[in-house]
Amino acid sequence: MNKPVKNSVRLSNYFMPTYKDNPKEAEIVSHRYMLRAGMIQQTSAGIYAWLPTGLRVLNKIADIVRAEQNASGAHEVLMPTIQSADLWRQSGRYDDYGKEMLRITDRGDRDMLYGPTNEEMITDIFKSHVGSYKQLPRNLYHIQWKFRDEVRPRFGIMRGREFLMKDAYSFDLNKEDAQYAYHKMFLSYFRIFAKLGVQAIPMKADTGPIGGDMSHEFIVLADTGESEVFADKKWFKTDMTAKGLEYNDREGLSNFYKEMSGIYAATDEIHKPEDAEGVDLKTARGIEVGHIFYFGTKYSEPLGATVQDNEGNQITLHMGSYGIGVSRLVGGIIEASHDDNGIIWPESVSPFDIGLINLKISDDSCNEVCEKIFNELDAAGKEVLYDDRDEGAGKKFNDMDLIGLPWQVTIGPKGVKNGMAELKNRKTGEKSELPIDSVVEKLS
Amino acid sequence: MNKPVKNSVRLSNYFMPTYKDNPKEAEIVSHRYMLRAGMIQQTSAGIYAWLPTGLRVLNKIADIVRAEQNASGAHEVLMPTIQSADLWRQSGRYDDYGKEMLRITDRGDRDMLYGPTNEEMITDIFKSHVGSYKQLPRNLYHIQWKFRDEVRPRFGIMRGREFLMKDAYSFDLNKEDAQYAYHKMFLSYFRIFAKLGVQAIPMKADTGPIGGDMSHEFIVLADTGESEVFADKKWFKTDMTAKGLEYNDREGLSNFYKEMSGIYAATDEIHKPEDAEGVDLKTARGIEVGHIFYFGTKYSEPLGATVQDNEGNQITLHMGSYGIGVSRLVGGIIEASHDDNGIIWPESVSPFDIGLINLKISDDSCNEVCEKIFNELDAAGKEVLYDDRDEGAGKKFNDMDLIGLPWQVTIGPKGVKNGMAELKNRKTGEKSELPIDSVVEKLS
Repeated sequence: MNKPVKNSVRLSNYFMPTYKDNPKEAEIVSHRYMLRAGMIQQTSAGIYAWLPTGLRVLNKIADIVRAEQNASGAHEVLMPTIQSADLWRQSGRYDDYGKEMLRITDRGDRDMLYGPTNEEMITDIFKSHVGSYKQLPRNLYHIQWKFRDEVRPRFGIMRGREFLMKDAYSFDLNKEDAQYAYHKMFLSYFRIFAKLGVQAIPMKADTGPIGGDMSHEFIVLADTGESEVFADKKWFKTDMTAKGLEYNDREGLSNFYKEMSGIYAATDEIHKPEDAEGVDLKTARGIEVGHIFYFGTKYSEPLGATVQDNEGNQITLHMGSYGIGVSRLVGGIIEASHDDNGIIWPESVSPFDIGLINLKISDDSCNEVCEKIFNELDAAGKEVLYDDRDEGAGKKFNDMDLIGLPWQVTIGPKGVKNGMAELKNRKTGEKSELPIDSVVEKLS
Repeated sequence: MNKPVKNSVRLSNYFMPTYKDNPKEAEIVSHRYMLRAGMIQQTSAGIYAWLPTGLRVLNKIADIVRAEQNASGAHEVLMPTIQSADLWRQSGRYDDYGKEMLRITDRGDRDMLYGPTNEEMITDIFKSHVGSYKQLPRNLYHIQWKFRDEVRPRFGIMRGREFLMKDAYSFDLNKEDAQYAYHKMFLSYFRIFAKLGVQAIPMKADTGPIGGDMSHEFIVLADTGESEVFADKKWFKTDMTAKGLEYNDREGLSNFYKEMSGIYAATDEIHKPEDAEGVDLKTARGIEVGHIFYFGTKYSEPLGATVQDNEGNQITLHMGSYGIGVSRLVGGIIEASHDDNGIIWPESVSPFDIGLINLKISDDSCNEVCEKIFNELDAAGKEVLYDDRDEGAGKKFNDMDLIGLPWQVTIGPKGVKNGMAELKNRKTGEKSELPIDSVVEKLS
């Protein structure tokens, strides 16, 4: 009965502590639900541990980001969290960052820091191995924890101090090639957010401390979002994944970029009604989940990152960087997809595919049916969360709605007698009865 | 031609910088080969970035550890790297750790630290959610970066400052249950090391700063190991994975533990010839890659981690912790498996399954054959590293031996004319000719 099952778990020996009441310290819905569903726990101000269900979602988001970045031709590396201050002094950013940078002195009295981003380090790594234009273009990314010593961390993992970010870095010989790299990431981002099940819109943005002269923020729309945004209603009708467009189609990518950046979208900081004249405008709220930059030689020049071109000249590299807030997205997706009873996960990032509720664990026939369904769904490659706890029906239903898996299967003594199970779609709330024998086929 | 391929890569647009000469700073073979094969790069003393091939190996090791820990009933969490000093003061370890602990003051003047281990934090997390014996036993683990501010970091990632560790923590009601938890991990470790393709032997060990009264180190045997070990030759004849033994077989696990701990094995610090009288002894060298501890109430008592038993008494939890040096294992495996030409990866952790060498990229027929093999092997689920660079045959052969993939397929103009490819087994050095048409079938 307890044979190890790869992706599915039994709640009776899992670690998913759930709570009925809203915690006082949580101001926003994603923070409330993540605490109540036992996804995270604060360990210091703005620093969180990820409990098993939270980690499952975090990993699924990271894997979607990874797959789409790989598909665009980027290669994954992993840079350390602790950096030397030296390169930051060379780039001139050591002082710019102020108190948000966590500064550390090691036992050898060297100035170190917990990286808030990695432009300097990746430039230094790249230049130590690459010397010729033949080795271009390249795009290297990593998914690593960052630290930003916020003066007032809040909103749970949405504005935490230790956070998980994907940051990619492109290296090219000239501005035109760098723009092509930018266009690749631009498309990759649309595909990532589509796969994550959220609507994200790119908006022209200030470049802030990263610098550069071309930049877009990607904003996920959510009623509870932190800022107001203004977007042409075309965004809600357009397919934004450019199906069939290949990353080696340079012209196609350029056209896609032009088309998309021609559709009006602006945050309230930048929005001017006169710019949006004649546009069928929707006002909404949004959360920033990604930010991409082209900044040319801003880092390669002070750090001396050059390659030889085909005529033997030393050329300073053109670079861009491309961030996605992986841990922030966990909260962002919840903000965009929930109801009064809890989270409603898009299928691609749900911690499990199916919740299986056993209404009476003292009833052998219920247990037998549940075990069979559990094992067969798992064997069919589905991830099942089986609620086999010694708890009442009310708590089981509430917890299952709270954790927000796409499908719920309920097995009770009456149903078992009649050979019937209940199936519920978490998003629509629709319930239906179906023969126990067809549950596995229906959900596989 | 450049359609995205999931797990396989073309060297012409990859990032795997290789070097012919041994770097001066590298004293041991794993450090030398990791630098020469472009797996890692030092970014500060004892701190490394993982380049794409290095990261692939690191992830494969982590995934094997993860699968076996899950199979034993442990659940994965993820604790942050930065911890508050408060809990360490409560446990009494804040001062014990000395200068190896990286201490940090944040902008709010709070004492923080970069976690070297997580006994305090996990105990605190566990106690805030678990109050009843019914919620026991549990085992929670994470795979997270740690920091140990070594006075003299060396040997590359074998003794680095920032390193990746798997640490699991068990929670039980009493000593007997805690021993069962220990036995589960004991078996899980044997299975992990067997899957990683290395021979590891558990040796009774001092408990050091973790404390406790039962502890084993797991030592991987390698001629270049850091310490001398003495082991009964039975270790090299015994199946150490107890095939078929289930984790819920409490008695079976206890017997397995007794049997294994009855076979002599000791590091030179502990070895006494009189203890090994009559034992057919092998002297070897070894590298510590895992360490498991039972330490009872050492942390639960000062941190007040208790549960109610079935009679309503508050019982202090019995705990153990179980570490594996994930990043260290990358070096440990290389130390155990290499020759004068480079690394010899066990199949389970090799960055790719197959290296495909195109001897003449200016020859259309070579390219066509290589593309076909590349795409078909990839479609068959194999990970292929395709050397399609504009380089000479010598460099291609040397690099492929250096990076150490289990199989090499070589395609050249002469062979293509005759319809033949060359297949080389990296470990045995054996080469054979085979029809081009049968390469994919042979390797799938």
